[in-house]
This record gives sequence, structure tokens and C-alpha cells, in this order.
Amino acid sequence: MTDTPPFAVVAKDGPDQPPDTAELHDLYRGFEKALLIPLWTEIGSLMPAHPQSKATPHRWEWSTLLDLATRSGELVPVGRGGERRAIALANPSLGGRPYATPTLWAAIQYLMPGEDAPEHRHTQNAFRFVVEGEGVWTVVERDPIPMRRGDFLPQGGTNWHAHHNAARTPMAWIDGLDIPFQYEIEAQFFDFGRDELTDAERTTPDRSRAERLWGHPGIAPASRLGSTEGTPLLAYRWTDTDAALTDQLELEREGFPGTIEPGHALIRFTNPTTGGDVLPTIRTQFHRIAAGIETAPRRETGSSVYQVFDGSGRVTVGDHCWSLTRGDLFVVPSWQPFSVLSQASASDSDSGALDLFQFSDAPILTKLNLFRSVLEGTS
Amino acid sequence: MTDTPPFAVVAKDGPDQPPDTAELHDLYRGFEKALLIPLWTEIGSLMPAHPQSKATPHRWEWSTLLDLATRSGELVPVGRGGERRAIALANPSLGGRPYATPTLWAAIQYLMPGEDAPEHRHTQNAFRFVVEGEGVWTVVERDPIPMRRGDFLPQGGTNWHAHHNAARTPMAWIDGLDIPFQYEIEAQFFDFGRDELTDAERTTPDRSRAERLWGHPGIAPASRLGSTEGTPLLAYRWTDTDAALTDQLELEREGFPGTIEPGHALIRFTNPTTGGDVLPTIRTQFHRIAAGIETAPRRETGSSVYQVFDGSGRVTVGDHCWSLTRGDLFVVPSWQPFSVLSQASASDSDSGALDLFQFSDAPILTKLNLFRSVLEGTS
Amino acid sequence: MTDTPPFAVVAKDGPDQPPDTAELHDLYRGFEKALLIPLWTEIGSLMPAHPQSKATPHRWEWSTLLDLATRSGELVPVGRGGERRAIALANPSLGGRPYATPTLWAAIQYLMPGEDAPEHRHTQNAFRFVVEGEGVWTVVERDPIPMRRGDFLPQGGTNWHAHHNAARTPMAWIDGLDIPFQYEIEAQFFDFGRDELTDAERTTPDRSRAERLWGHPGIAPASRLGSTEGTPLLAYRWTDTDAALTDQLELEREGFPGTIEPGHALIRFTNPTTGGDVLPTIRTQFHRIAAGIETAPRRETGSSVYQVFDGSGRVTVGDHCWSLTRGDLFVVPSWQPFSVLSQASASDSDSGALDLFQFSDAPILTKLNLFRSVLEGTS
Amino acid sequence: MTDTPPFAVVAKDGPDQPPDTAELHDLYRGFEKALLIPLWTEIGSLMPAHPQSKATPHRWEWSTLLDLATRSGELVPVGRGGERRAIALANPSLGGRPYATPTLWAAIQYLMPGEDAPEHRHTQNAFRFVVEGEGVWTVVERDPIPMRRGDFLPQGGTNWHAHHNAARTPMAWIDGLDIPFQYEIEAQFFDFGRDELTDAERTTPDRSRAERLWGHPGIAPASRLGSTEGTPLLAYRWTDTDAALTDQLELEREGFPGTIEPGHALIRFTNPTTGGDVLPTIRTQFHRIAAGIETAPRRETGSSVYQVFDGSGRVTVGDHCWSLTRGDLFVVPSWQPFSVLSQASASDSDSGALDLFQFSDAPILTKLNLFRSVLEGTS
Repeated sequence: MTDTPPFAVVAKDGPDQPPDTAELHDLYRGFEKALLIPLWTEIGSLMPAHPQSKATPHRWEWSTLLDLATRSGELVPVGRGGERRAIALANPSLGGRPYATPTLWAAIQYLMPGEDAPEHRHTQNAFRFVVEGEGVWTVVERDPIPMRRGDFLPQGGTNWHAHHNAARTPMAWIDGLDIPFQYEIEAQFFDFGRDELTDAERTTPDRSRAERLWGHPGIAPASRLGSTEGTPLLAYRWTDTDAALTDQLELEREGFPGTIEPGHALIRFTNPTTGGDVLPTIRTQFHRIAAGIETAPRRETGSSVYQVFDGSGRVTVGDHCWSLTRGDLFVVPSWQPFSVLSQASASDSDSGALDLFQFSDAPILTKLNLFRSVLEGTS
Repeated sequence: MTDTPPFAVVAKDGPDQPPDTAELHDLYRGFEKALLIPLWTEIGSLMPAHPQSKATPHRWEWSTLLDLATRSGELVPVGRGGERRAIALANPSLGGRPYATPTLWAAIQYLMPGEDAPEHRHTQNAFRFVVEGEGVWTVVERDPIPMRRGDFLPQGGTNWHAHHNAARTPMAWIDGLDIPFQYEIEAQFFDFGRDELTDAERTTPDRSRAERLWGHPGIAPASRLGSTEGTPLLAYRWTDTDAALTDQLELEREGFPGTIEPGHALIRFTNPTTGGDVLPTIRTQFHRIAAGIETAPRRETGSSVYQVFDGSGRVTVGDHCWSLTRGDLFVVPSWQPFSVLSQASASDSDSGALDLFQFSDAPILTKLNLFRSVLEGTS
Repeated sequence: MTDTPPFAVVAKDGPDQPPDTAELHDLYRGFEKALLIPLWTEIGSLMPAHPQSKATPHRWEWSTLLDLATRSGELVPVGRGGERRAIALANPSLGGRPYATPTLWAAIQYLMPGEDAPEHRHTQNAFRFVVEGEGVWTVVERDPIPMRRGDFLPQGGTNWHAHHNAARTPMAWIDGLDIPFQYEIEAQFFDFGRDELTDAERTTPDRSRAERLWGHPGIAPASRLGSTEGTPLLAYRWTDTDAALTDQLELEREGFPGTIEPGHALIRFTNPTTGGDVLPTIRTQFHRIAAGIETAPRRETGSSVYQVFDGSGRVTVGDHCWSLTRGDLFVVPSWQPFSVLSQASASDSDSGALDLFQFSDAPILTKLNLFRSVLEGTS
Repeated sequence: MTDTPPFAVVAKDGPDQPPDTAELHDLYRGFEKALLIPLWTEIGSLMPAHPQSKATPHRWEWSTLLDLATRSGELVPVGRGGERRAIALANPSLGGRPYATPTLWAAIQYLMPGEDAPEHRHTQNAFRFVVEGEGVWTVVERDPIPMRRGDFLPQGGTNWHAHHNAARTPMAWIDGLDIPFQYEIEAQFFDFGRDELTDAERTTPDRSRAERLWGHPGIAPASRLGSTEGTPLLAYRWTDTDAALTDQLELEREGFPGTIEPGHALIRFTNPTTGGDVLPTIRTQFHRIAAGIETAPRRETGSSVYQVFDGSGRVTVGDHCWSLTRGDLFVVPSWQPFSVLSQASASDSDSGALDLFQFSDAPILTKLNLFRSVLEGTS
């Protein structure tokens, strides 16, 4: 027992609370000395009727992020110790921590021409997604993997990885990880790898070895069979994602099922060895919402981060509403009703669909029997 | 008890057998009357030290099959009752039944120009594989699926299906099913469907709806999530298979892992919702053996049927050895040592690799903890 | 190709059959020479509308079995080679093979005082069930396990096992195995073990080591965690089975759910590491049917063998109907409607319930997506 | 963007940090305004080389807890709103929250004679464990379940439950829940149930209906088959736990495997429908450490709470060391080395073994591929 209790037990008012007597006061001091806190003063906030997210819905504009990343490119070196020139979304109500949501990290990463980010590995599961640009190769387990607009590049925990910008221009992309979750659950390990890439790793092949083994639909290499926790396919290319979304909307137009709701195509990136999510803790999906369509408001347990890949529109999350344009990021906290409207932008010469990349902590909730998803207004 | 026993209990000789006395004779007659058979006279054949296949290794030449199928096209109608113009491999030691192996059915199917094979469904799991030709669409759950050389078209039990030859020439392909297994296990159901296809089903789209939903690598349609026993991807195209095999051999040449043994690329067709086999009872794989390479002799529990897709070579199964050319089929019974030699044929202008399509009953053995695979000479 | 075809392709009559012309005759001769059989002459029997079991419903009287086993005890030695004094039920329509059903072996085994059955192991999954008597210890992986009336003793494939009769009287019990299934699927391995048990293995402890580790409800030994294909619990004692059945009927009387249908208690023996069946290929259950109750007729894919443990009654399987008394065995082939009536016997001073032990091949069908169970008259 | 940033981005010193220039100062102010935080100033604490638990090892003495609970029994009513007279362990370094560890809630609950705790349900998974006393029935889904010394009573999320003290004396026990975890992950739902129990629910049967259906070793009720996320067995009785622990130590003495290390018996409570943990998020185990034995120091990811059930000893967690006696609770934070010494107490007339009940968040880590357990000094 400590002499000065590290916290106070505070009597509360209410018909269900005990009368605030001298004896109760003594009892609560006893609790403090013994490092105890009663349920009856805490239950309302601890065990609410439904999730009350600590996170705030928020949108970050890509232009602001890119501007700050560009300035960081001039001022901040990349090297051993700092490891990455990554700048994270910090939800304004999560205590000044670099957490987009209580479980998810989202950051813009930026690499100058010729720069390398040094090799390391960690239990935190990670991915990269490219909203614009090309020229960087991420090197995962010594396999150089090109990154280009629209590509999704997952990388399960404990793979060694580094990045290499082979181009003459800087490149930015977003990183998603489960850093906040692993920090809270206290499961994380981190190891430094080699400081320098080899020449072989600085080659810039058009396809990774991972894709050559695993990137053929429905086809597995017999020498590598057996399910793995993280996907062995390390790049999901935009041409495939775009084709899958296009196919869904065309099937809908032809009168066949495919979309998740009218005008709303949705695909999930999956681990070809299990059919499940690409990463043990992170679900990743891609939405295409046809011009003029508004999605039905929905609530889900767990949180998501979205990035606008193309098009423009408006998003409503709880009481918040923002307009969206390419590259903008926003968070949807747990159990907040969420919908998106795709607006045909005047400057768009194409279909005007709104393309959104999404990542969430749904695998955590699903595996622990805690995932719920309902249309707003239902239960 | 029957008056005339339906079988005889026969005394055997041997140091472990009881003396052949009058009392023993009476006992064995008592067994017969009571419909009983002792273990001690049967154990040697019933419980051998290792599998002793009832099937015989055998090769069927494609030219013979195609000739007989062509003659059948002239003489045998296709319609309700007979259902399909399919001619099955009958292993010579399986009692005159149309069984390629104790568990697997393999047949050549043949459809004349303009012909339809009527709709039905059954619990037997099935696939089609095309060694040559095109022009037929298989219609599965009203989804027309084109079939062309090299394509593999699985179809899990209980899907409604029909076939339609839209071309001006006949077309042949092979069917593989688990008919013998389901016949022995006594689990099969069969239903007749509609006699006629609709005009919509006689359309000849280049891609099936199944491919548009499921044929993008690592990408699942969110409206159809959840694992299914049979694969929802109903066509695995030759371009993908060929690319995957080519990639494995190229990775090997570059010094990276990928092939199953030197010069031997091997891919498995998988169900994208599980990462497992495409069908609950049938495993399907494709081998490419580089010219001049001989695979290491291997024994496996369970049986396989192979078809030569391209190239030429020699195959050894137990004491049998045959030369192989395009379209030839052969069976590998349980626990028979098996190897293949790829021979560069004089008539081949290309790489000379031997391409082999394989199907087997491995999922049955695997799920029941009975699968074993060893290199010959090891245990 | 053989000169004399090993089988004949026989033309059939019917509106769906081709006209029986000279050309067709030649074609069929061609099929024979090429070892081919057409689907159109075979489909009716090969692919029936629903399972048509090759097995016949049959009942074996325990008194007959026990009499023949007793006579075998005098005439037939137990030792290496014959391995076991086991006498198997031979279904009269399964070709004179010692098969109770197409997949299941059921035998009475008999051991004289002081006798040992020598050690061996095999991939065939096995169990023992004791309808009367005691005195034998089965020794599994050197763990001596007592066998007494009502006990169920499973033993997954590849365990070494022997039996030892420590009593002054003979003892009989039944063995159930998947011998026919593994014979058809051709997956079986068999090894001889030691000819003699050690003195330590001839000890007669009251409980096996397996029970001491795994026989506590809901409790697993942390040193042995991880799921196993065969159950690590090697004895399921009658006191537990009886209590579980009694509890179900009492709950029903109190107005709570528990029984499978009114008056019909049903328990399943399970593997505590998975919650699933005790053996990879065999399901085992115990029924208690209250006096005067008749179960609802039901059809299931796959086959079962039942033994009457106590009480008397009548059973109906398809067109067959027999009276039942203690020890009687009967088989229920695939998809045959089956019901049992429990009759209060005059000689019973107790509750008059009918207790039935059942084993079936349901895990095979379940794992391969082929199990169906319906009340007769429904689909 | 807010006018006053809710947090500050603080420049750090170090060879891997950018020079602290005016431009950097401006950049960091830009980060604050845009709600961004860089990785390079945070990585050390966010992504440590191995888990650095926020929780402090701590021991709570049972005598103190029981004294404060007794005083609460006099001052604090139990009823709707406060719901339970439960007093939680508050780890001194977890910010004054009622968290024993970052994921686990542990509380003493106390009920006066004749009192009821009202019915509710919640997604938080829960259990009760009784270190002393009897007289309370927990009523889960209207099934009254007696609670006595040594009993473990799990209850998966979303079951309705209430408690009823039918005795003439107060009763205390401990509750364990995943409240902190679900609070952080934001997945929790809570519903009030009926305010009053019925007379039928106030009955005090010796066994629950759950035990009558599921409490027989290896035996499942066929009417309730299928795996469930939370165990259907709602009481694990001390007689079974004690017997299992006794058996392990006796097997060790006889020379057979069973204990987890010499002198250390360990059992895990399991869900009989899966063989896995009783609750989706909480693992529960029971240790018996023979007198004089010290367990090998071990580190594990994730956290545990222990309660001394019997005996006395000393525990070392990281730099902390305490003596232990009946009822004492202590926490082992993530990755802290942990060992226990069992001391024969002078007042013990029995074996002197130390019996410890443990619960942990291991299922969360295991399902997400994050569980590691190593002997201290190894990796």
C-alpha cells in the first residue's frame, strides 16, 4: 500500500448511490489506500448501453498532409532510430497520442529520391496504400515490390522490410498499422535489421516474387501450401481492384447480384491461404460508389479509417459532415452512424464514381465474437 | 437367419490358424448360418501392412478415346435419362465398373454442334478439363461459362448445370467426379432439372459471372463473403495456369524457391473462400516438368488420374511404364510408386516441357487423417 | 489393351438408349477393348435419385454370437498372425465380406482367462464396447485400461494396443472399426508390436492414466493441450453415461429441454480436445428410450450399427422389423427409415427403458459435406 | 482544424532527430494544427523492443479486501443502477481506472443474506470464482447455479444473469471480466433485465441444469450439439478440479507425464464444445505447486491475475516479491518474469501445496497471433 493514493474514489449522486455519510467517506478512503475502485460509481461510463467511442469523427485534408510531408522531406532525415519519415493522424480526443482511432495507426510516409528507409521488423501488422505517385519499392523479406497508384501492399507482422525510392521525385503513400492496439494489449516486439539494402534488393522488377507465386486467381504454389496468418500475397494491384469493382457495377446493371447495395460496389482484400482477412488484426476493403448514390447509414462495432482514392462527395459520421476530395482521410469511430454520398464533380470527365479505400479493426472484433453491423434505425 | 448361407467361411492353413478339426468345421458352418466371418481367416487381406490397391495402373490413349467418342456422337443421342454422352475409364481390375480408381470417375464427354446436355444436379462433385477445342458453354446455376483448351471448370455438388455447344464443330473434354466414392459411401442424391435452356443461358459471354465476382487475385466480393464447401470460382483459365507455372520455373532459374523439386513446377487449384481444395472430395493440380527432367518416385495414399495436356514423356507407375503424348490419361493407384520423365519431342518447337493435369481423392484422405506421401525408399 | 476384355458393355433398352444397331454393337465392343464404359447405360444405378444401400437391414442375436464366440474360445488360439479372436458381422448382401455395412466393421471379441491378445497398431480407427462382463484390460500405448459393462473405449488409429484377461472367467465385448471404409479407400497401414506385455502392463489399476489426465469434465491437462484427431480420453465409463442419460429424462420431466425428442435421451461421446467426434471416421452415441415410447422414423445418409445395452423393444428398419433384447445387434443402412419402440419387459423390475449403443460413419459424411438427416415423410 | 491544438508535438534530442531549427519548430506547429504527430519522436515508446507494461505488479491482501467488502455490505445497497456490490482492483499505474491490468477486471463481490443482485446482460465476458463460503446461487439464463468454495463459474457474454443469496450469512467471491479490454476496443453493449427473480429461480438445487447437460466427462447432449463461443458448462466444481490436480501429481510420482514441470500441476478450464478456452477473451487455469517447489521463471505476452486458493508461498514478478496466503490476489503484467515458491506453512496440517487460480487475456493474444511464452533467459 502506498502512502499517497495514486487516485481518488469519488462519491457520486444518484438514487442508486449509497448515502454520502462519514462512514462512506471513510470507506472510500479505505478503497483508495487499498487500490480499489467500486463498480457502482463507475458502471455508467465503463459499461454503457452501447459503445461510446473515445475517438472523434474527423477528416484530414490530403493537401495539408502532403504539404507537411513535403516540408518534412526537407527537414527530417530518414535513418536508424527514427526509422521512417511517417506522420500520423492524431485523433483530437485520444489524449495527444498518434492514434487515428483507439486501435489503428494511419500515417503519411514520404521518401525523397534515392532515399532508403532502413530494414526492421515488428509484430505490428502493417500495410501501405498508394493514392498517387510511384517510384518506391518496398522490400519485404528481400523481395522488392513496386508501389504505384492504387496498389495495396499488406505485410503481416514479423516480416523484415525496408523501402527504397528509385525515382527522381519524392513519393508519398499511407501506412496503416495496429500500433495503438498492440500498445494497449502490450504484445509488441521490434527488431532492427540491416542498415543497408543490397544491390539485388535495389533492383526494380515490375512484379514481386510474392506476386509470381501467389498472384494468380485461385491458384496456389504447391511448394508453399498451408494457411498463414498474414497473406503471402504482398501486392494487390490497382488493375485487379479496379476490374473487380467495375465488374460488380456492371453485373448490377445487367440485373445480377454483386454489389453490396444499389450503386455501391465493395471488395475485400483476402489472404489466399485462408479466404479471410489479409492481416490478423486489420481488414481492408475498397468501395466504389456510383455518382449520385448515397449509402445507407450503418453502425458497426470497431473503427475504420478511409481514404478517398478518386472522385468527390460528402461523408456523414454521427454529427459530423465533410466534403471529400482525392486523398482526404477520415475516421469512423465505433458505433457512429456513417454514410457517404458520391457527387459528380465538375472537373471529373469520367464516371464520377467515388472510390474509397477502407481499413478497420474488424478482424479483432470478429475473432472475439464482438463484431456487430446494423443499418441505422434497426438493431 | 437364412437357410442357405449367402457365403462360405473357408478354413485356412497356417501356423496362426486353428487345427482343421470336425469341431472347427461345425463352428465355421455356425458362422455361416449366423452371418458371421472370423477375423483370423481374413486379416491378411483386410488389414495389410500397407495399401494394396485393387486398381491396376493403366494408360488410356487419347486418340482411342476421341475416336470412340466421335463414333458415339453419331450413334448415341444426348437427352433426358442418359443425361450425358460421357464414356468412362473402367479400371480393368475393378469388377467391370466404370471406375478409373476405387474413388474416382473419369470420362470423355462429347457434344455435337448445337446440342444441349439437359440440366440436372447431384451431390457428386464434378469438374471439366479441356485438353483441346472450344465452343461449349457449361451453364452452372444459370451462369454460362465458356470452356476452352487448358481451362479447368470445377462445380461443387448440388449446383444445377447443363451444357450447350454453340459451335459448328463437335467438342470433347474430360469430366472428373467422385461417383465411385459416393456410390460406396451411399450418400448420393440426383435431381432432374429443366429440359431446355433459356435463350439467356444460350448466350455466349466471354467470361462467366462467377469469374467477374471471384476471378480477381486475392479479392473477394463483400456481398458474397463466407467460406463455401465448393469453390464459387467456376473457371480457372489456362492463361492464369500457364503464367503461374511459367513463373515457378523462372523463379527457380533466378535462384529463388517456387518449384516443388528441381525442374518441376506444381500448382494447386484452390477455393478462394478457404484456401483449400476446390471441391470437398477432389484435389486438382497442374504439373509442368521441364524437358529432360524425371520426377523423384513418390508414393501416396489415395489415387490419382492424370491427363497429358502438352508435351511428351514416359511415366512409371509400379511395374508399369508407358510413353505419353497429348491427351493420354493414366491412373496412379494408392501407394504405387510413381514418376514421370519429360522428353523433348522432335515435333515440339517450343520448350518441350511436359504439362500434366492431375486430379485425386486427397481431400477425403486429408480430412480423415489418412493422407501420407513419401519419397520412394523412405518411410 | 487386353485381348480378352475383363468386362462386357451391355446395351440396354429404353427410350433414352441408342438404337441397338450393328454399329452400336461395334461401338460397345470398342469400348470393351479400350476399357471404357458409357454413362448412359449405367447412370440409373450409379447415380440414383437417393441412396440405395447395398447393405441389408439385419439383426444378429447376442445369444447366438456369444455361443459361437464361446465355442471359438475352445477351438481357436489367440496369437500373432490371427491377432484377435474376433468374429465379425457379415451383412448378407455385401458379397461375403466381413462388413456390417459398406463402411463399418462390428465384431464380438472373446478372451479366455489369462489370455493376451498381442500388441499391434493400425490406421483403422477402433473402439470397444462392453455389454456384459469384466476382467479384461486393454493396454493402449502401455496404459492399462479396465473394461466393464457399459464402458466405451475408443482408440484412434496408430495407437499401439493389446488386450489382457486378468480374470478367472472368459470375457466378450464388441469391437467397432472402419475396416471396410479404409479397405475401399485404400489407406490402411498395419504394424506388429511386441509379442508379450510387461508385468507393469499386466497391472490392473482401477483407472487408466488417460482418465486421470482427461476424465474430469471440462478440464484439460495444460501439459497436453492442442487438439488431436483421436480422443486422448480412452475410457468413457458407464456411470457417467448413465448419469447423463438419466439427467436428460429428468430435465424433460421437469419441463426443461434436454432430450432429442419426447422420451428419448441421446448423448454423443466426444473428443475433449475438439468437442467433435471421438474418432476421425466413427461417431458413437448412446440412446435411452423411455418405456412405451416409439422414436419418430428418420432417414440419414451413411450407416449405423446398434447394440441393445438394456431393456427390450422392437426396431423397424425399412421393411424389416425385429424384437430386441440385451446384446442384440442390428444395422441401419443408408437412407433406410428407422424407428425403435421401447417395450416394458415383464422381467424388468426397473424403469423398462431401452438403452441402445450406436456407432456410425457420420464423421466421414459430415466432413465431406454429405450428411443429411430427415424425419421420414419430410425432405 | 481547431484554433487551440489539443496536444503539443515536442521536439526530442538525439542523433536520429532532426536539428531543432526554427523551420522544424514551424513544422511541428503545423503538425499540431493539422492534428498530426510524427513517428520519429514517438517510436521509442510506441514500438519498444519488447512489451513494456503500463501495469505495475501488485498484490492485494484478501483480509483487506474482505474487510472493505464487509463494510460495504453495511453501507452500500445493491440494486438497479449500481447493479452489483463489486469492488475492483485498481492497478496503481493505470490512471486511476478500475483495471487490474490493461485488459482485465478483477473484483470482490459481496452479497448480504437474502439479497438479490438484479438481472442484466452484457457483451463483457465474465466468471466468478469462490475462495471461501457458500450460499449464493448465480442465475444464468434462469438456471440457478450454486456457488461454493473452489467452484469456477464462467458465463459468456450476452447471457442474462442475476445473483441470489439464500443463506443466513454474507458471501464474498471474485468476479473476473474483460471490461477494460472491451472498453478500449469499444465493443460493449449492456441491457437491464428483470428487477426481480421468480420463485422458481430462487430455488436452490444442488446442481444446475447446465451441469446436468454438460457436466459429464467427454459426453455431449445430442440435442445441443454445435460449438459455441462461450462454454455451455456453467460450473466447474472443486471436486473435479482438485481430483485433476491430485491425479497429475500422482502420475508424476509414478513416473508418468502429466505435470507441466516437476512438482507443478496445471489444468485449464475448457469449453466442451470446442476444447478451447471457456470464454472468447479469458483463459482460466488452476495451478497446484507441491510444497518446497519453485516454478521456473517465465515471461508471457498478455497479463494475468492470480488468487491464492490454498497454501502459502512467495511470488516474484519482475522486481517485486511478496508472501502469499489464502485469498491474496496479484497481477502479472505482460512480459514480466514470474515465478512462485510453495512454502509449507506451519499451520497447514495437509500437503502444504500452494493452489493458485489464474485468469488471463491469452485467448485474445492467441487468436491474433500475438501470444509468446518463454522461460526467462531464453528467447
